[in-house]
Amino acid sequence: MPLDPAAETVVTGFRNTPEFAHGIVRDIRIRWALEEIGRPYRTELYDAMKPRADEYLQWQPFGQVPAFADGKVRLFESGAILLYLGEQDERLLPAAGQRRWDTTAWLIAALNSVEPMLMQIVTLDIFYVGKPWAADARPSAVALAEQRLARLADALGDKDWLAGRFTIADIAMVTVLRNLRHTEIVAGFPAVAAYQARGEARPAFSQALADQIAGLKQGEPA
Amino acid sequence: MPLDPAAETVVTGFRNTPEFAHGIVRDIRIRWALEEIGRPYRTELYDAMKPRADEYLQWQPFGQVPAFADGKVRLFESGAILLYLGEQDERLLPAAGQRRWDTTAWLIAALNSVEPMLMQIVTLDIFYVGKPWAADARPSAVALAEQRLARLADALGDKDWLAGRFTIADIAMVTVLRNLRHTEIVAGFPAVAAYQARGEARPAFSQALADQIAGLKQGEPA
Repeated sequence: MPLDPAAETVVTGFRNTPEFAHGIVRDIRIRWALEEIGRPYRTELYDAMKPRADEYLQWQPFGQVPAFADGKVRLFESGAILLYLGEQDERLLPAAGQRRWDTTAWLIAALNSVEPMLMQIVTLDIFYVGKPWAADARPSAVALAEQRLARLADALGDKDWLAGRFTIADIAMVTVLRNLRHTEIVAGFPAVAAYQARGEARPAFSQALADQIAGLKQGEPA
Repeated sequence: MPLDPAAETVVTGFRNTPEFAHGIVRDIRIRWALEEIGRPYRTELYDAMKPRADEYLQWQPFGQVPAFADGKVRLFESGAILLYLGEQDERLLPAAGQRRWDTTAWLIAALNSVEPMLMQIVTLDIFYVGKPWAADARPSAVALAEQRLARLADALGDKDWLAGRFTIADIAMVTVLRNLRHTEIVAGFPAVAAYQARGEARPAFSQALADQIAGLKQGEPA
């Protein structure tokens, strides 16, 4: 059970958010990776509804979560933290050669070629809901997201994982796909939906999800 | 002069694009990094207006540029290629310790916490120009981009570069900022504008830019 209040490794998260964010706040990526390798960690949970203190901005310049520290380095950005953890454990990232760079390429693709297109739909549906233009903007956003999901489906083919075996690239991509769970868009690409389900079926993911949601509920009014 | 038709290292790019894309197509990032370290490369240039062949999709699953190969690995995603080049040359990426992870965190921040917000403005201004909702959607997109640029300005403070000295994080962030060159938005953040100008003043950037534009013009009608 990697969650351990005495651990030296720290991951930041939120202790309350609107319910739509439960299970998709990005500290889930780091919790999942740490569960996969059994590395103990503790959390520092912030109130998502209040501005972060200046001290936190020294650690995470955009005020987001997660940030990470382990007594050796302090860093931010879930993608960078996954790379850091991957370099320390081959179960997360092959140590060298083509497999290592396939993993790195797919990790970056999840964050830069897929997530922005999917988050645009989340932005329209959740943050801009009720704005008169949001509904008109949605079909173009969906078309762009579907283009990327079609390419992802082709690239997956009949593979279980993006880089041959489970890696941090899959942690990134599966958690990116989860952002569309309020829609039926991913279901339109059966190979992608099956891939997402395969990731979510891993015990390490289930534990990470349960721990994130328990943390988020700490901030709920009694 | 790293551009060398006999080089083993290959970078893919476009040989024609609409003019707004000149100087911002993402192969500029890889050209710039290779110029910084004097590593020879050749290009494979594709027609941006035609669909990519299935063979190319095996290399770059989203049909984008750049893709990269050097006889040892094949990979895609400009962020991943920058990390690969960085691991081979400390001038691009410190070899270990906090500086290495500061660089990695800022590289990912450029691609995942800044670029999507800036590209949303490009999407509205260029791709969706004329759609009746695009003008209405713009103020929200600008507000979000400005939030990120304000944080970036704070993080830069009076530093010349994001991770203490010039690194691949700066190649990523400066080229991300260049996407807003059709606007005055970055000028509203003088520390960020000065940082962008500092990056663009490097001889390696100038050479990369000149070579990209020469390549893009190959496809122009005679």
